[in-house]
Amino acid sequence: MAQDQILAAVVGNDEASAAARPSRRSGRKGKLATPRKSDVVRGGMPGGQFKPLTPAHQQAVHQAALTLLETVGMGNPTPSAVEILTGAGAKLDDRGRIRFPRALVEDTLAKAARHFVLHGQKEQHHLEPWGSNVYYGTAGAAVHLVDLENNSYEDTTADALFKAARIVDEMDNIHFFQRPMVARELSDLQELDTNTLYASIKGTSKHVGTSFCEAWTMQQCLEMLHYVAGGEENFRKRPFVSQSNCFVVPPLTFAQEACGCLEIATRAGMPVLLLSAGQAGATAPASIVGAVTQAVAECLAGLVYINAIVPGHPAILGTWPFVSDLRTGAMSGGSPEQALITAACGQMAQFYDLTGGSAAGITDSKLPDAQAGYEKAYTNVLAGLAGVNMVYESAGMHASLLGVCLESYIIDNDMLGACMRIVKGVEVSPEALAVEVIATTCLEGPGHYLGSDMTLGLMESEYLYPKLAERWSPKEWVEQGKPSLISRARERMEAILAGPVPQHIPLAIQAHIEANYPIKF
Amino acid sequence: MAQDQILAAVVGNDEASAAARPSRRSGRKGKLATPRKSDVVRGGMPGGQFKPLTPAHQQAVHQAALTLLETVGMGNPTPSAVEILTGAGAKLDDRGRIRFPRALVEDTLAKAARHFVLHGQKEQHHLEPWGSNVYYGTAGAAVHLVDLENNSYEDTTADALFKAARIVDEMDNIHFFQRPMVARELSDLQELDTNTLYASIKGTSKHVGTSFCEAWTMQQCLEMLHYVAGGEENFRKRPFVSQSNCFVVPPLTFAQEACGCLEIATRAGMPVLLLSAGQAGATAPASIVGAVTQAVAECLAGLVYINAIVPGHPAILGTWPFVSDLRTGAMSGGSPEQALITAACGQMAQFYDLTGGSAAGITDSKLPDAQAGYEKAYTNVLAGLAGVNMVYESAGMHASLLGVCLESYIIDNDMLGACMRIVKGVEVSPEALAVEVIATTCLEGPGHYLGSDMTLGLMESEYLYPKLAERWSPKEWVEQGKPSLISRARERMEAILAGPVPQHIPLAIQAHIEANYPIKF
Repeated sequence: MAQDQILAAVVGNDEASAAARPSRRSGRKGKLATPRKSDVVRGGMPGGQFKPLTPAHQQAVHQAALTLLETVGMGNPTPSAVEILTGAGAKLDDRGRIRFPRALVEDTLAKAARHFVLHGQKEQHHLEPWGSNVYYGTAGAAVHLVDLENNSYEDTTADALFKAARIVDEMDNIHFFQRPMVARELSDLQELDTNTLYASIKGTSKHVGTSFCEAWTMQQCLEMLHYVAGGEENFRKRPFVSQSNCFVVPPLTFAQEACGCLEIATRAGMPVLLLSAGQAGATAPASIVGAVTQAVAECLAGLVYINAIVPGHPAILGTWPFVSDLRTGAMSGGSPEQALITAACGQMAQFYDLTGGSAAGITDSKLPDAQAGYEKAYTNVLAGLAGVNMVYESAGMHASLLGVCLESYIIDNDMLGACMRIVKGVEVSPEALAVEVIATTCLEGPGHYLGSDMTLGLMESEYLYPKLAERWSPKEWVEQGKPSLISRARERMEAILAGPVPQHIPLAIQAHIEANYPIKF
Repeated sequence: MAQDQILAAVVGNDEASAAARPSRRSGRKGKLATPRKSDVVRGGMPGGQFKPLTPAHQQAVHQAALTLLETVGMGNPTPSAVEILTGAGAKLDDRGRIRFPRALVEDTLAKAARHFVLHGQKEQHHLEPWGSNVYYGTAGAAVHLVDLENNSYEDTTADALFKAARIVDEMDNIHFFQRPMVARELSDLQELDTNTLYASIKGTSKHVGTSFCEAWTMQQCLEMLHYVAGGEENFRKRPFVSQSNCFVVPPLTFAQEACGCLEIATRAGMPVLLLSAGQAGATAPASIVGAVTQAVAECLAGLVYINAIVPGHPAILGTWPFVSDLRTGAMSGGSPEQALITAACGQMAQFYDLTGGSAAGITDSKLPDAQAGYEKAYTNVLAGLAGVNMVYESAGMHASLLGVCLESYIIDNDMLGACMRIVKGVEVSPEALAVEVIATTCLEGPGHYLGSDMTLGLMESEYLYPKLAERWSPKEWVEQGKPSLISRARERMEAILAGPVPQHIPLAIQAHIEANYPIKF
């Protein structure tokens, strides 16, 4: 008796055919017996299964954000922002704040860029961050490099940043590279910006995000990007770098330097991450939904701003509120409240059908220990399940973003693969229900499923195998010499860094850049 | 302008009132300004937000399970099981298998015990494991004690088991104690069973689960329990110990010794965990939903069995399939596939409105490292969000259940608190949306939320603070002497074990038991 007949008989045709359909989440055909190597997980799998906010809650957040923009608005605008925003229909009030009429925000939402690709230097790294598609990546502005050999926190450098980019380039489950640390030895802003950009784009061909110190420091950076792309038009066509822009100092105040950079990036065709990084209980309301509401309002203000400069310019809704430990006011990025805030932010981006980016994978722990593992896991898996398009900070970070650890990229890569496998969900089909396989196994032998066709078929298509994490028996562990996770991560890291430097940027172009910019790593 | 007026104006009355309602998940009133100490999380908070199976999928699993019970049934029944089950309407086929007509299973489902309390020795530890209420607890049959000081795996003992019970008794977020290890020094089965039981019930007043080796070893254990309870009637009224019973050797075969114990426990008024511990790809189908289907079929067979002995006897649907690493056949309890299997099992228990128990929080790592942290976290948080009533193995286990680590209970306790905080979800109300607070803060000062009424109000009601995990700044970390998570856990463990032995069992009763049983710890 074929399984679909059994199912049709017992479930009824409608339900059987519903059951026979693969889970929407998996996005795959119901055929299980065909192994498809390296397709167990990939960047961009659709999440959205976890919805901490109801539709009514999302509507309430949206309306509250509109009310805030209308009645409170944004303080501290630059003259240029005043000109651009009042030109688009915003009002300058007598406190010097920009107020946003509801209709202006709604018109912006109607015309804002949607479903835009974020490009890698290599096409295989292009991202499609829309709907509930999930990508995990890095970010941050760590000032400490975690030195695991000496159990200490050192200064971050351009060299460490370049190493981070090279490591991330090799990590299957880290899909983009936003600059995670500050090259502290570079006090000259021009040097800082050019080295940060070049260390990132030289180290990895994945999509890069970075920020720029001031408007005037961007020009050389844009020239470098045009040179790498083979001309400005090429870069505009496929911008493989986006700008991470903290245009707001929460609550509801413009950051003037960043606004200058935002205007330049927008005019230069560079996608902008509109980053609102409040901290619940400090610079944002302590309530989870209040922090989300404020961040949504701030990012919508940024969206109006960008669309007033270039309608339809690609922007990422960077609702990125952090959490405070309310006893001390210190940030706690590894808290469970952070997991909920980030997931709720992911829902709001989907509410608008805009590309959203939020933070997960932060830990408060100083080291890659069990606390780091569990804090990173529950924040990252829920960000994925909530369908956050761009999960920033998802790997490598410690000490609530003050520290970055190169070995942790390698440890976290397995965790992110597991998170994505969970996002992929459960495949349900008549074959997967396995009634016939179970019956045959029990009634005709061999009484187990080892080596069965189904088992072999699913081995490479539905089961994910970690690259660094171990599944040894206690006996094998002893035989291996009990190497720690950290020592194995370091070994892998050293192998990557001892290998060839990536050459996705042709050597001649590298040489030109290194001759013409003050490259320090 | 009051926030509810704003909301009523902007959201419309229906949506505003929907938004004003507290999230169903939180189960709390919308008032945020009243801190309620120690109520941030508690055992039994309702999950159910994560649903990897659709309703059609659940129906398909149910129908497939009924088909299996009808057409394949259960092999290897004892004569007593044959008598009991055929007496209830099951059929013995010519292969010697018990087949279950669909109507028999459906009648059992109609009359099975629902919404029964699992008692602790202290009333504060009573569990209400129904609906999507979530409790985290221990379980397992580890044979190795992880010795973190010597980085080695030693033999488990009755003494270690007693220590584990004492530690768990102190852990806020571990809600029940099922025996997690085997007292390996005890080769006499009677000694093993009585010591295992007594170490558990003496060490903690939380609900205890344990298993018994054989039917004949149970009698002394029941006498002990009646003595502690002050008589058999008292124990039957409030059975504070349930029996973990592996009545099935998957696929679909009875375990004869366990069936003997099951019959005794049922007649003795002891709740039974009907434990089906197949392993996907080995003793269960490799497909996630196939493994769930087989486990559901097996547990329903157990449910028919129990209800044929004593209709309405409390039973926990222990759909507890594990995952294999299909490359080696070894178990991988820390895999992402395990997280999905467990979550799907939780949904099936809710489908039947039966109490369900499944496994999460297992790690493949040998030690409490980052791998252990992330594997435990994603499995536990999804078990909670799926509304698994009894999350077994949620703390302490390593090496895919072969190892147990006492320090890990203390580390994992914080993780489980965070998982429960996530299960609690996001509170949404007009106050929480915080429009008025944001407006006032921006327009009238102070421009931040530190020390605001809302912040202080939420500090003890919505924010969870870990007990062991650290949130130091890098500077504070150095000042503290950089103590590792493991060393801090050991310190706490030693403090607990150096403290007084629990006396929920009066000393006179302890003395009587220790004089009359071969107690070895």
